[in-house]
Amino acid sequence: MCELLAMSANVPTDIVFSFSGLIRRGGQTGPHSDGFGICFYEHNGVREFKDYLASAESKIAQFLTTYPIKSKVVISHIRQANVGQVSLQNTHPFQRELWGKPWTYAHNGQMPIEHIPQPSEFTPIGQTDSEKLFCWLLSTLKAKSHPDATLDEVCSLMLSVCSQANQLGVSNILLSDGNYLFVFCSNRLSWITRRSPFGEAKLCDDDIKVDFSSVTTENDVVTVIATTPLTNNEHWHEMKPGELRVFKEGESVWQGYSEPVIHKKTADL
Amino acid sequence: MCELLAMSANVPTDIVFSFSGLIRRGGQTGPHSDGFGICFYEHNGVREFKDYLASAESKIAQFLTTYPIKSKVVISHIRQANVGQVSLQNTHPFQRELWGKPWTYAHNGQMPIEHIPQPSEFTPIGQTDSEKLFCWLLSTLKAKSHPDATLDEVCSLMLSVCSQANQLGVSNILLSDGNYLFVFCSNRLSWITRRSPFGEAKLCDDDIKVDFSSVTTENDVVTVIATTPLTNNEHWHEMKPGELRVFKEGESVWQGYSEPVIHKKTADL
Repeated sequence: MCELLAMSANVPTDIVFSFSGLIRRGGQTGPHSDGFGICFYEHNGVREFKDYLASAESKIAQFLTTYPIKSKVVISHIRQANVGQVSLQNTHPFQRELWGKPWTYAHNGQMPIEHIPQPSEFTPIGQTDSEKLFCWLLSTLKAKSHPDATLDEVCSLMLSVCSQANQLGVSNILLSDGNYLFVFCSNRLSWITRRSPFGEAKLCDDDIKVDFSSVTTENDVVTVIATTPLTNNEHWHEMKPGELRVFKEGESVWQGYSEPVIHKKTADL
Repeated sequence: MCELLAMSANVPTDIVFSFSGLIRRGGQTGPHSDGFGICFYEHNGVREFKDYLASAESKIAQFLTTYPIKSKVVISHIRQANVGQVSLQNTHPFQRELWGKPWTYAHNGQMPIEHIPQPSEFTPIGQTDSEKLFCWLLSTLKAKSHPDATLDEVCSLMLSVCSQANQLGVSNILLSDGNYLFVFCSNRLSWITRRSPFGEAKLCDDDIKVDFSSVTTENDVVTVIATTPLTNNEHWHEMKPGELRVFKEGESVWQGYSEPVIHKKTADL
């Protein structure tokens, strides 16, 4: 299975600590050695870094662990390929512009690509089911919503679309327009919100600790979402299958549930 | 004026030598200190690196000079801001998907943003005249052409659109779909094609030489396009105002001319 990582914060925050844990799963503590990608929103702009090499070996990933980019929304993904060759065009996160905003998306799961409806407004560049699903999801948003829709309207539509995706196969989704972070759990996602008083955290995948109280102010609110918890001394919330949760500025601002789907436990996705 | 750099090659080639010269113009040998960006096509995928810091000081730019990425098409830009704040969203190259391909674009010049027709299919994310022009150019391509159009049809349309842009103000353009590299000269662009027998080249902006014969094979064909020549011991072709030239696999495959426009020599653009 691929691994997902995201962050939503109320102040520009670096994600080096969490990212350091994630990338070790890309070929070292985990088998996800078919590339990685990470998008940092900074104001309305996006900085994207991708490699088709294993993140544990990628010089770009190593560079990022030494170069803290401060951001309020981050989406990242390490890949274990099942559909589509190992190449940049098949590397998440994927990105498209809608309503003058750069939307980014990462996915884990698997479904028969021919079961995904043909996207009307965007065309996949690569061969993955994930990117086709993204194009269909964003096409539906473009066709059925508008830039001035309320949060509740957008989230309800998103829940409906994610739920349809979930009927097609395992489909854990991270999606953002740089403001909101939409997180849909098909079968496996956890999240944690860190706020004052901050404590010490210890990575599961590496011998690294961080004392957040030394790098934050008392007003900071930082939520991290990951496929499985990245630290072993904190309490992470496990999301429910079928749950959509939306974060803004580090806070959970919307949640809704669709019918959970019992997915067959196939090989790792 | 911003500075442009592009490459088209018939084998994956690294652009570290040329890029090393360019980035010194971003705050050191030149005044273009408002960010830089570079896109590398690798198969159908794109790797993009951007910074809003001066390229001469950017750690990302420094990293790239030590990490040769091999690509057949590259587009790069260093920015001296005139419209739009210094931020990622206003940093070239810009990117949009059309017909399942990632199109990238960089521009130098300036025009009244309100004179650019409203783009129908794509929406600018930032505030620059350059990005609005890109959205309009790509919207026109989407509306008036199709994925199976011949090279001549696409180039003729592109020449017509670039010529209209040129009427609005200085508009030097680099555009690619990863296969073809379209280069439109409004007032300043030069290019050079290097092929066997390869010789030694010496950068204008740095004390760096490279002996291309030691890093190439006799079948390699590599074209580099830049605002002004990057080396001082080779013959570069100066493009004519109003000229569109299209490269593929390092070779010039199409050229056409529109009516040149005598642009007023305003301050540096």
